[in-house]
Amino acid sequence: MKKVVKFGGSSLADAQQFRKVKSIMTEDAARLFLIPSAPGKRYDDDTKVTDMLYSCCETIRSGGDAEAAFYPIALRYEDIIADLGLSLSLQDEFDRIIMNLQKGAGKDYAASRGEYLNGIVLADYLGWQFVDAASVVFFLEDGSYDDEKTCEALREMLRDRDHVVIPGFYGSLPDGRVTTFSRGGSDITGSIVAKAIQADLYENWTDVSGFLVADPHVVKNPEVIPMITYRELRELSYMGATVLHEDAIFPVRSAKIPINIRNTNNPKAEGTMIVAQADDGNSPNVITGIAGKRGFSGIAIEKDMMNSELGFGRKVLQIFEENGISFEHLPSGIDTMTVIVETADLEGKREILQEQIASALQPDHLEIEDGLAMLAVVGRGMRKMRGTAARVCAALAHANINIRMIDQGSSELNIIVGIDEGDLDKAINVIYDMFML
Amino acid sequence: MKKVVKFGGSSLADAQQFRKVKSIMTEDAARLFLIPSAPGKRYDDDTKVTDMLYSCCETIRSGGDAEAAFYPIALRYEDIIADLGLSLSLQDEFDRIIMNLQKGAGKDYAASRGEYLNGIVLADYLGWQFVDAASVVFFLEDGSYDDEKTCEALREMLRDRDHVVIPGFYGSLPDGRVTTFSRGGSDITGSIVAKAIQADLYENWTDVSGFLVADPHVVKNPEVIPMITYRELRELSYMGATVLHEDAIFPVRSAKIPINIRNTNNPKAEGTMIVAQADDGNSPNVITGIAGKRGFSGIAIEKDMMNSELGFGRKVLQIFEENGISFEHLPSGIDTMTVIVETADLEGKREILQEQIASALQPDHLEIEDGLAMLAVVGRGMRKMRGTAARVCAALAHANINIRMIDQGSSELNIIVGIDEGDLDKAINVIYDMFML
Repeated sequence: MKKVVKFGGSSLADAQQFRKVKSIMTEDAARLFLIPSAPGKRYDDDTKVTDMLYSCCETIRSGGDAEAAFYPIALRYEDIIADLGLSLSLQDEFDRIIMNLQKGAGKDYAASRGEYLNGIVLADYLGWQFVDAASVVFFLEDGSYDDEKTCEALREMLRDRDHVVIPGFYGSLPDGRVTTFSRGGSDITGSIVAKAIQADLYENWTDVSGFLVADPHVVKNPEVIPMITYRELRELSYMGATVLHEDAIFPVRSAKIPINIRNTNNPKAEGTMIVAQADDGNSPNVITGIAGKRGFSGIAIEKDMMNSELGFGRKVLQIFEENGISFEHLPSGIDTMTVIVETADLEGKREILQEQIASALQPDHLEIEDGLAMLAVVGRGMRKMRGTAARVCAALAHANINIRMIDQGSSELNIIVGIDEGDLDKAINVIYDMFML
Repeated sequence: MKKVVKFGGSSLADAQQFRKVKSIMTEDAARLFLIPSAPGKRYDDDTKVTDMLYSCCETIRSGGDAEAAFYPIALRYEDIIADLGLSLSLQDEFDRIIMNLQKGAGKDYAASRGEYLNGIVLADYLGWQFVDAASVVFFLEDGSYDDEKTCEALREMLRDRDHVVIPGFYGSLPDGRVTTFSRGGSDITGSIVAKAIQADLYENWTDVSGFLVADPHVVKNPEVIPMITYRELRELSYMGATVLHEDAIFPVRSAKIPINIRNTNNPKAEGTMIVAQADDGNSPNVITGIAGKRGFSGIAIEKDMMNSELGFGRKVLQIFEENGISFEHLPSGIDTMTVIVETADLEGKREILQEQIASALQPDHLEIEDGLAMLAVVGRGMRKMRGTAARVCAALAHANINIRMIDQGSSELNIIVGIDEGDLDKAINVIYDMFML
């Protein structure tokens, strides 16, 4: 049994958090590979080390004092080292980083040092081996991730090693320069390591007790989802719910390795298991999660006998495509069709779109309506449970929320409802109450 | 106040029906123009005169005895004339028709004689003027209807005339030969006459007391719809509900002339008014009608990250279009899309469609599912009444009917639900009960 364990920034913000991490790591002998983020915020107004590194790099580039600019960053690590009572000194590392930044090392390099230094401290504290991600995570010349080379290097490096700390977020380009994944990319590193060594589980420790059924800013104390499929997660993430970096899912998903989202501050909580397959009956609730997204518009097109006009829908979509606009949904009645798109995608294109549709399709009526929100109710439990759509609709009707559009595709895994933006928070709450209370 | 009045075949099947027609016509002085069909069935096993004419034409073409073949048709009219006590003789007409058929007049000519002869009898019985439709209803060389020439001729002919009988169903080609609208086309003639003379109302008398909320073969004694908009009617007709010939709607609709569907056998019943516009609040019920149609298939396509692939939906529809297949609906979730089409349209094209979709779009999963039915719940009252979708879904859920797809477009005039074919009749009944009882 091998587990790859990733800790987020808030789980490594200070010495107290490091102690929790050590206790978690030693508690389970299968936790053999650790991927740390850089130290995050210790309190609400605090600054993440990664952000400090970006602004330090900026200061040095614009001619500011490098030592002074790096000082608060060094202090963050020295505080942790002192507080943990370690004899480790990072002075040589600090000097080299400052020198490289003065020589013009880029902001990717700067940003990556947060994880790098944190990995060194953590390895020392745990008595584990430190492996620089630059030696095992590789990118291609164009900056895209090189999966083949990375997996080979990781397998080679970790074949006979365990109890290893590999910093997240960064790797190296073919010329040796450091580059990074997009922000939050330590999740990706963990996922790649798990895939490369064929781990049994990828634990992702954060500051929430798992993936929540609904946004806690909208619903008060929402329940944690005990188990979610990749597919469900993708649907909820697409609609705006976020816990994991989206790109972090693909490596483990393809390797069929489950992800366990855990809470460093509440390690007894079992968190959320993200799995490839789950029995439909395996969900204690009919629905797995609810997510909503604002900022949609509907372009409603009416035309007599539209349904008997071969190619009508295709021509409509072609006009959107030629203007670089993806459509989200295409609800249609008889002689009516609405193209739902993100409002932002319409910017600067409203008039040309209307002109093109009018001239190509001669509709009887054409109207753009803004201010729509899409709400997704997702759950593998819906398949076996009839009447979910009825309950969703009933909850909304009871709250006097008008349904502008309903789409329940053949996957029977979700129901997507279009409503007015102003109704979104209320809608999420009434659906949560309907299914979870 | 001018009314154009059309009677269907069952309203003119025998002398007893002719008497009802006379009483209806004389009861309202605004009923100035009458469009008759050919005599229909007098009892269940009876043959309509139009069908008799088709087979008479067939007999003569294949060398049968013309007189003998025409005899039962002549008898139908002679029975009516005798029963009504008219002194009219149609012998010359019969002889000319037989002669023309022997000379090779086509089946359009044959079929049209049912209306033609009925018009002569009716004009004689009412003491009205008979106008041969061949002199006022015109078709173009390609067989399509010539609206401009017809309206001009009708206006000219009817400018100073009233109490006129014009047979439905037929007219003449530029070379003088007779041709017909498609079967049931007397409805169209009535509509055209109403438009040409700017009638205030087009009365369409038939053997039902109006347009019913649901199919009486499915729901027991469904209520009559008192008022329906053209738009609602189009939606119900599209889904298979029929009372009027579809092409009969356009002339009066464009001229904003209401249609009144009435029952010759129950003239006191007010029937159904079909109008251009109706107040949303004008409907005593939330829904206006329910219609269903079997024979649909869903082609379900799943692909990871489909939503971020610009042009995905357009490419899918293009493949269907290139194979000459219209799509009816396109419900989509996240990374899933289902193309709903009529099953008959897939004949001989299943494999090529699947191949083309697979090669152009590389879906993760592709499946064709047959045996779907579409059910449309239509009603202008739904706009102001929230919760209709919820009630529809609840009715279906309660009856244990699985909803495969829901489409509620922006028109808010209908909800279309996809279900299994086997559930259709039950579904129509539970929705009827939910909204009408």
